[in-house]
Amino acid sequence: MARLSKRLGYRFTEQKLLLQALTHRSAKGLHNERLEFLGDSILGFIIAEQLYQQFPKESEGELTRMRSSLVRGVTLAQMARDFKLGEHLILGPGEKKSGGHRRDSILEDAVEAIIGAIYLDADIETCKDLVLKWFAPRLAEIQPGITQKDPKTRLQEYLQARKIALPHYEVIDIKGQSHNQEFTVKCTTDINQQAIITKGSSRRKAEQAAAQQVLEMIENDS
Amino acid sequence: MARLSKRLGYRFTEQKLLLQALTHRSAKGLHNERLEFLGDSILGFIIAEQLYQQFPKESEGELTRMRSSLVRGVTLAQMARDFKLGEHLILGPGEKKSGGHRRDSILEDAVEAIIGAIYLDADIETCKDLVLKWFAPRLAEIQPGITQKDPKTRLQEYLQARKIALPHYEVIDIKGQSHNQEFTVKCTTDINQQAIITKGSSRRKAEQAAAQQVLEMIENDS
Repeated sequence: MARLSKRLGYRFTEQKLLLQALTHRSAKGLHNERLEFLGDSILGFIIAEQLYQQFPKESEGELTRMRSSLVRGVTLAQMARDFKLGEHLILGPGEKKSGGHRRDSILEDAVEAIIGAIYLDADIETCKDLVLKWFAPRLAEIQPGITQKDPKTRLQEYLQARKIALPHYEVIDIKGQSHNQEFTVKCTTDINQQAIITKGSSRRKAEQAAAQQVLEMIENDS
Repeated sequence: MARLSKRLGYRFTEQKLLLQALTHRSAKGLHNERLEFLGDSILGFIIAEQLYQQFPKESEGELTRMRSSLVRGVTLAQMARDFKLGEHLILGPGEKKSGGHRRDSILEDAVEAIIGAIYLDADIETCKDLVLKWFAPRLAEIQPGITQKDPKTRLQEYLQARKIALPHYEVIDIKGQSHNQEFTVKCTTDINQQAIITKGSSRRKAEQAAAQQVLEMIENDS
């Protein structure tokens, strides 16, 4: 626990708040879901204010997009791994056996719960300083406009930058009448071994959905 | 403006922050969208913390439901009307002509922007005290469990309480094979002039979707 405190950069006065934040609902006793509810809202506020100040010229839409990309699950799960949170999670026997301490959703929830716990243990200013420190490298990197691009464009750019062949999209089925059609698209790339199959109300939408899935795969693997 | 300050219970040091919060994007100059982004996150945090403290035994799901019902658009638009915010909104000529100062979405955005503006003008504690004062009657009334009821039940109770005939649901189409069917349901009540048509993967789901639409109509009208 001392090592975790060091990695988090915060020493709890009430140690049991930290324990609760680390306790998944599958375990006995007080678990972290309520703290996660609280922490999620605190995180949203801290990041919103930071982006508001850091980007005085950007539109609401751009700020919203940047915030989503900062507070989304994969980012928080990655942060949890940096903190080696998995080692400290308290899980029920089923979750333990099935590798719950490595699962993204459990890790991200624990990060939010820890934010809630720090707030309760201290105050909003302490919490803000800490969270901004955790996010500092990501805040230093984030730029408006990047996440605006649609999934197909982003996937293409990702592959081009790595000199990987561009994805191949193929319509494999069209169902329904003219103004209510459903397109099924198959997307193959050199990075997803199994073809991705998606549906959409237009060819474009189905293709975008496929590209999005490949991007998520890439993010989850990285 | 002095009257508005009085109704809000807050006097701005920087009057131009209040002016910005009242300025819709359709008007010239600095508008309120960025402040709305900030205010929305502050409101979410303040209400989350309040509910966390006020209901120490409730689950995350219940807290989330209560928060949604407190911070949703209709609630904020109602609050805006209590503040007589419409009189003070700064709108572009088109919005002015089409009655933008009465539109729910414009009113609720302005409330969130005012919250953001107060935070910038003062600090989080001042902002929290004020927002909790505004929400006090609603916080005193809110109970867990109430919003948990499904849309059909809520619609039925709404109509019964007003001695209006119960809604009539009719399946007008079923498409697809046995485990992949799509049901189309028509819902008629004495309060929606046009029948509501919805689809769902089961009869029940299509009916619930229809009831939900009627409830939203009621909320938007009220």
